[in-house]
This record gives sequence, structure tokens and C-alpha cells, in this order.
Amino acid sequence: METPQPQPHPAAENVMLKPIGYIRSPYRQKFAIPRQPGLVKAARGQLVLQPEFGHPDALRGLEQFSHLWLQFVFHQTQDQGWRNLVRPPRLGGNARLGVYATRSTHRPNPVGLSVVEIGRIQPASRQQKCSEIELIGLDLLDGTPVLDIKPYLPYADALPTATGGFADQSPDAGLTVSFSPPAEQALVAFTQTYPQLAQLIQQVIAQDPRPAYQHEPERVYGMHLYDLNIRWQVRHHHCEVLTITPDQ
Amino acid sequence: METPQPQPHPAAENVMLKPIGYIRSPYRQKFAIPRQPGLVKAARGQLVLQPEFGHPDALRGLEQFSHLWLQFVFHQTQDQGWRNLVRPPRLGGNARLGVYATRSTHRPNPVGLSVVEIGRIQPASRQQKCSEIELIGLDLLDGTPVLDIKPYLPYADALPTATGGFADQSPDAGLTVSFSPPAEQALVAFTQTYPQLAQLIQQVIAQDPRPAYQHEPERVYGMHLYDLNIRWQVRHHHCEVLTITPDQ
Repeated sequence: METPQPQPHPAAENVMLKPIGYIRSPYRQKFAIPRQPGLVKAARGQLVLQPEFGHPDALRGLEQFSHLWLQFVFHQTQDQGWRNLVRPPRLGGNARLGVYATRSTHRPNPVGLSVVEIGRIQPASRQQKCSEIELIGLDLLDGTPVLDIKPYLPYADALPTATGGFADQSPDAGLTVSFSPPAEQALVAFTQTYPQLAQLIQQVIAQDPRPAYQHEPERVYGMHLYDLNIRWQVRHHHCEVLTITPDQ
Repeated sequence: METPQPQPHPAAENVMLKPIGYIRSPYRQKFAIPRQPGLVKAARGQLVLQPEFGHPDALRGLEQFSHLWLQFVFHQTQDQGWRNLVRPPRLGGNARLGVYATRSTHRPNPVGLSVVEIGRIQPASRQQKCSEIELIGLDLLDGTPVLDIKPYLPYADALPTATGGFADQSPDAGLTVSFSPPAEQALVAFTQTYPQLAQLIQQVIAQDPRPAYQHEPERVYGMHLYDLNIRWQVRHHHCEVLTITPDQ
């Protein structure tokens, strides 16, 4: 006996979505972004709502919630397509898993999901054209288009009994971090512009952003945070930040 | 001194998304759908993946997770537009909140977010054209287009310290439920087709789907589950299911 065949659904039409706003973030490149939000608390950014989607009324009551969901577009990788199998960095880059079993950015639809802490909410006003929401523990690239925000509902969203396969545990915070004398001097100079710069660099590097399959000793890594170029080196699980200089 | 004005972001272009599949669900109308997923465990359905998005490889490893996120389209209400302020049913339908402080279906972009338990995973095969994933505790309408699925990662998604404003508590399960003799007979007749029908009806009504501002005693309510019409009445916080009949 043949199993009845489900038919393609007639309602499955394409959907056109408009970004309601975009993200301002210290992360200017994919490298160094923590694998999930909340791991780097010093990463603060803003959601800037487009005027037509950011009326102060639309934000009323949001301040009663501690966290919100961002549904956003993986804008930097969306043109790269997707594959059925991906190599999650958490598994060392060798094992392959189905794309739906991962949070890979290369997906059939390039949409992401991220929960962040809500900071200061600044509704649009005469002085400020766009409403802004400060976001704490952000893991998104600068300029990320946002499709929707929703309050985090603990009773529905926090599932204490859920189990998480290969990603059941938070990644080990693997590296201790210190600053070289030139980096210390630079920190002093840039702290007025970026008050939490030292914590941000420390927390980002503590996550060990190096690719798991490429731990070359002595290699000097570079990363961009805000408009700064940060160079660092790892020896025996300790990282020294060598220099902090403005981007060229 | 004037605050610098953020500029509309050049990358904020519209995004075209394709449903990867659609939902089969007992819920055929918005009325009676629980307000969040997981509240009605007897609500089981399937995600049916379109052939081009449902290769068995793309599902590899998903069975290691207990729950998944669905990002989906509010297809039945997407043409109704949105407003800055909405009246959440949880607040009795009177208080108004900003749309971003609610999970209302009427949003700037009609996209929803729902976490469900993963049941049986059936990859496409010679006998079965489309891959299917059984979903437990579903709160979506039959036919809902799905844009993406992602594994639920407890370490990143379950925030035990989050606080939830007006929706901090799970809604009270308010009503006890019994079946009239004709309804009991109908249950026997339909149980072969829908083995969990009695539990589903009980759990759906226990959530008290009546609009908060419209508790008319003696009123007979009707609701549709699968292809059945269920009529019921509430007296003193107890609901009696009167009849269960096939839809005309």
C-alpha cells in the first residue's frame, strides 16, 4: 500500500520582508564574534529603528522585560548560498551536521535569531529622529538588518529540561588575557570614546575566537572592534594583546 | 548642541524569503490556539519540508536535540496590517501595549517565533517524497509557512533570570472539562483517527480560549480541531463539551 503523498502547499508563496531597523555594534567582521549572544556582556550596541517602524508608542511596555529576541538577516553571508551539511566550529570543523541541526549563518533563508538583554530605551523625539534600544551581550555584526523584535517570555521560552546535542554546554572560556605596555597605553587613550573597551577585548578573546582546527603557536591574530585594529598572540593558553591602533 | 542624527542604513533593503515547508496541525482557526507553544502537549503536528529544502542530510543530527525553534509566517493575518499599539488578550483586552512589547500576530513583518518539542523525524525516502518532523506542543495554524528551523540551545536560549513583564507567569489553567454522553460517544468513534483527541480537547479548553472581555454565561462556543466541530459551554469554571461532529 502506498503512503499518501503530501502535496506542496499552495500557500507557500515567497514573502517580502522589510527591515524595521539595523544594528550598531562593535563587531565589524565575523571573526571574533562570540558563537552565541550573552557570552560577551561588554558587547553593547543599539538597535536603531527606521522612522516608519519606530514610533515611541510601538515600544510602550518593552521596558518591563529584561530581554528581547532579535530576528535578523545574515546580511554579510546571504549571497553565499547554503549546503545541506555544515561543519560547526564547536565540533572542531571536521564533523558534518545537517544545516537544520546548527545555527550556521548559511541557511536556506538567511535569517538569524538572537536573545539579548535590554538596556536603555530611547524613543524618538524632537532631538533624536530614530528610536533606539540599547542591547547588552550582542553577537551581531555592525549594520545587521533587523526584521522583528519580540519580548523574551520566560514561561514559554526558557525550557529548563531541553537538551542540546553537541551544543549542550556553554563553550569553555579558554584564554586568560593581558595587555602589553603599548596596548595599555592605547587603552588609556581610547577609553574616553569606548569606556568598556578593555572588558570587551578581554571577553571576546577569552572565548577563543581562533578556528579550532588552526591553533598555530606564535601566530599574530588581528581583529576589528569599533574602528580599532587589535593584534594579539596566544602562548600556552594565555593571550597577550600586542597593539590597539585605529583602522587605516 | 545637536545630537548627531543616525542615517537610514543603506543596507536596509527588502528581503525575499521562501518557505522551506509548512505545518500540518489540528488547529484550523485562530480561536482556540493556545497563547504560547508547549501549553497543550496533546497538540501534535508535522513540519512538511518542501523537497528542495528537505534533503535527509539537512536533518542529520537534529535528533540529538529535544526542541527546535520555528520561524514562520503569520499567513492568515499578514494582509491585515499592523498598529503601534495592541491589546494583549492576557491583559483582558483593555490595556494597550506597544507592538514590540507583545507577541501579537499583527507586526511590521508578519513573522512568528515558536519553540516546540521534536518528535519523530522522518527523512524523505523512496516511499515518502517530503521529509517530515513531528512537532509536539504546537501552537500554529494548519498550513503555516515555515521560513527556518533551528535547534534550541539551552545554554544560550534558556535564560533562568529573565523577567517577563505582564507575561511573567504561565496563564492559569482555568477550566475543568467534562464530556456530555453524546460527546463521549463521538470520542469513541473518532479516536481511531485521532488517538489523542480527548486530551487535545481537554487541554485546549483548560487554557480557557474565551476572550477575556467576553465571558457570557450560557453561551455555546464552537471550535474546530482537525476536521471536527466541537461545541462547549462553561458554567462556574467548568466546561462541558456538548457535541463533536464532522465539519460540514
